[in-house]
Amino acid sequence: MPFTRPTLLLDERRCRDNIRRMSAKAGRHGIRLRPHFKTHQSLAVGRWFRDEGVAAITVSCVDMAACFAADGWRDITIAFPVNPHDAGRIDRLAAGSRLCCLVESPAAATMLDGGLENRVDMMIKVDTGYGRTGIRWEDEALLDSTVEAVRRSRHLRLAGFLTHAGHSYRAASVAEIARIHGETLARISSVKARYQSGGEDLVASVGDTPCCSLAEDFRGADEIRPGNYVFNDMQQVTLGSCSPRDVAVAVACPVVAIHAARREIIVHGGAVHLSKDTYRGTGGDPVHGQVVELTGDAWTAPVRGAQLVSLSQEHGKIRAPEDLVARISVGDALGVLPAHSCLTANLARGYTTLDGAPLDHLSGREWRRP
Amino acid sequence: MPFTRPTLLLDERRCRDNIRRMSAKAGRHGIRLRPHFKTHQSLAVGRWFRDEGVAAITVSCVDMAACFAADGWRDITIAFPVNPHDAGRIDRLAAGSRLCCLVESPAAATMLDGGLENRVDMMIKVDTGYGRTGIRWEDEALLDSTVEAVRRSRHLRLAGFLTHAGHSYRAASVAEIARIHGETLARISSVKARYQSGGEDLVASVGDTPCCSLAEDFRGADEIRPGNYVFNDMQQVTLGSCSPRDVAVAVACPVVAIHAARREIIVHGGAVHLSKDTYRGTGGDPVHGQVVELTGDAWTAPVRGAQLVSLSQEHGKIRAPEDLVARISVGDALGVLPAHSCLTANLARGYTTLDGAPLDHLSGREWRRP
Repeated sequence: MPFTRPTLLLDERRCRDNIRRMSAKAGRHGIRLRPHFKTHQSLAVGRWFRDEGVAAITVSCVDMAACFAADGWRDITIAFPVNPHDAGRIDRLAAGSRLCCLVESPAAATMLDGGLENRVDMMIKVDTGYGRTGIRWEDEALLDSTVEAVRRSRHLRLAGFLTHAGHSYRAASVAEIARIHGETLARISSVKARYQSGGEDLVASVGDTPCCSLAEDFRGADEIRPGNYVFNDMQQVTLGSCSPRDVAVAVACPVVAIHAARREIIVHGGAVHLSKDTYRGTGGDPVHGQVVELTGDAWTAPVRGAQLVSLSQEHGKIRAPEDLVARISVGDALGVLPAHSCLTANLARGYTTLDGAPLDHLSGREWRRP
Repeated sequence: MPFTRPTLLLDERRCRDNIRRMSAKAGRHGIRLRPHFKTHQSLAVGRWFRDEGVAAITVSCVDMAACFAADGWRDITIAFPVNPHDAGRIDRLAAGSRLCCLVESPAAATMLDGGLENRVDMMIKVDTGYGRTGIRWEDEALLDSTVEAVRRSRHLRLAGFLTHAGHSYRAASVAEIARIHGETLARISSVKARYQSGGEDLVASVGDTPCCSLAEDFRGADEIRPGNYVFNDMQQVTLGSCSPRDVAVAVACPVVAIHAARREIIVHGGAVHLSKDTYRGTGGDPVHGQVVELTGDAWTAPVRGAQLVSLSQEHGKIRAPEDLVARISVGDALGVLPAHSCLTANLARGYTTLDGAPLDHLSGREWRRP
C-alpha cells in the first residue's frame, strides 16, 4: 500500500531485542533497570518491557506518570526537578503507586512537603559534570541542607541520589564516553557514601543510553535509567553506542519531487515529523536522518551517501547517490532513520508496526490536558 | 494561577493586529491575500482571518485542507507538491471546494489526473532561487512539458505559477530580503508571461513572511501567501520583518531550578514544547527563544540578555542577567518568545488566550488519521 503521509514505522523484533539486551545487562551486573519511558511514551511498548521483567520505570513529567500509573505501573520516578505547584497531582498519584520525585533545593522540598498527604520518595538531583540541573557533586553545603530538608519533612522519604550524564551525548569517542561513565559513578557514589549512615536504604541512580549501552562496569551504581536504547537513532549510531541494525524506528516518507541534476529527492517528511534535531553526518555537517529503502515488511541497511540534509515544516530534502535518484519515482516512499527518536516519536504521536498494526503514543491522546 | 505545564499563550489583540495589517497591505496593492494556515492550524484563529475578509487560504497537506474545508473554507491551495496517491482524498475535497494543487513534473500531473473525477486547479511550482522544490524558472523545456500535461488532462485546470522564496529566511539584512523579493517577482512574472496567451486567467503567486512584511512593491504578483506573520517569532524579529511587540505567542514555562552562580534558570519547556529550531541570538550563537516576564494578563518586552540557550526533551536552560535570577523563584513561570512559532504551535497542540480561554490547533485532534 502506498504511503500518503509520513508514517513512523516500528520494527517490533529490533525493539524487543533492544529491550531484552539492556535487561540482560542489568541482570548480569545485579543492578536495577528503571528504563526511561519518555522515548517511546507508549502503553503498548511499555508492556514489552514488562515481558522482560521490568517493574520500575522513569518518566519526565507528572502527566506521563499519570498515564503509566493508569496502565498498572506501580513504581515510577519522575526524573525532572519537581514543581511544587504540582503537589496535588503528585499526592493523588502517590496514593496508588510508589512515586519518586527529584529536588535540588531545600526550598522546593519544603514547599512540596506542605502540599502532600501521602508519602513521596525523594531523590536529590546531583550534577556530576553535565552542567544542566542538580546540585554540584562537590557542593557539600547545599547537599547537606537539601538532605536535611527532606529528612525533617513529614511526607518525604530520602531515597537516594540521581544524576544524568547527558554530556555523554557530546562525546567525541567511545573512550570519552567510558571516561564520563567512570567519573559519573565515582562522583555519585561518593555523594551517596556521605549520607549512608542516616539509616535509609539509599540508591545511587545513573543512566543515559550511550554510557549504559557501552559500559560493562557499573560498580557504584544501584540503578540505571537509560531510555533511548528502546529505539536507538542516528545520534546513537554516530556515538558508537549501537549499529544501524539496532535502530528500531524509521519514518516512511512519500517522495514528492525529484531533482536529478542536483541529486536531490524531496519527501513529505519535515520538521513536524522528524524534529529539527541533527547528528554529524557523512562529511561532518549536521544532518537530520539517514535514508534506508523500504521493502514492504522491513527496511534495508543505510543507503550509503543518502542523507536528509535539510528540513522545512513539511518538506525534507535528501541528498542521494545517482543510482538511488535513478530508481526512485514520485509516489514511492523512502525510509529515514531519525537523528533523535524521542523527538520524532513525540511528533508522530503513534507507531505503525511492520505488520501494519497501530501502536499508541501518549501524545496521540488528549493526555496533556486531563 | 501558577503554571504546572508549559503553556502556549496567544495574545489575541497582537494576533488580530498582525492579520489586519497584512490584509490592509494586500488591499492597498490590489493583490489577493491567500494566507498560509500552516502556522496557526486553528479553526478559531482562522475565523479571525474571515473577520478581515479573507476567503482564500493556503495549507500544506491534504489533511489540513480537509479540516479547514470542514469549517467552511471553500477556496484552498495545498502548497506542497502533490502526491498522486492522494488523488482519492483530493477528489472528494474538490467536490465541495475550489481546490488547487501543485505539480512540478508532467508525470505527477498525469498520474493525478487519472485518479480524479472532479476538477482540480493546478499551479506549477517554480523555483525562483530557493533551491528546494519546483521547476527552475529558466528551465523552459520542463515548464513547457508540465504546462502541456496539465492542459491536455481531463480534470486539471492550469491556474498559474507559484513560488516560495524561502531563502529570504537566510538573508543577512533587510536589503537582501528586498533584493530576493524583487528577483522573485521578476522571475515568476516572466514565467507567467510565457504562458499567458493560452486563454487561462493565470495567477503568479509568491509569499513568505519576510518579503511580504517588508515589501511595498508587489508588481508582477497576483497573490501573496505569507503565513508566519499571524504570530511572528524571534526568527522574524532577527530578520527585521517585525518587532518583538508583534510576536503574538509566548510559551509560559514553569521555573524548576535556579543556578545563581552560573546565572542559569532551568524551566520546564524543552524540545517537545518549543522545537529545536534556533535563531541567532545576542552574541551571535544560535538560541531557542527570548525571555519575557509574565504579568498575569500580558507579557513584558524582552528581558535584555535573557535567552533560552539550550534545550533537552523537557528542560530548557535560560542564561539570564543577575537581577532576573535574583527575583525569580522555583514555582514562578517565565515567558519565552519562540524561535519558530509554526513548530512551537504544532508541538503545543492548542493555545491559551490571555483571558485563559483555550483555542484549538489541528494537531490537538486525531485529525491526521481520519
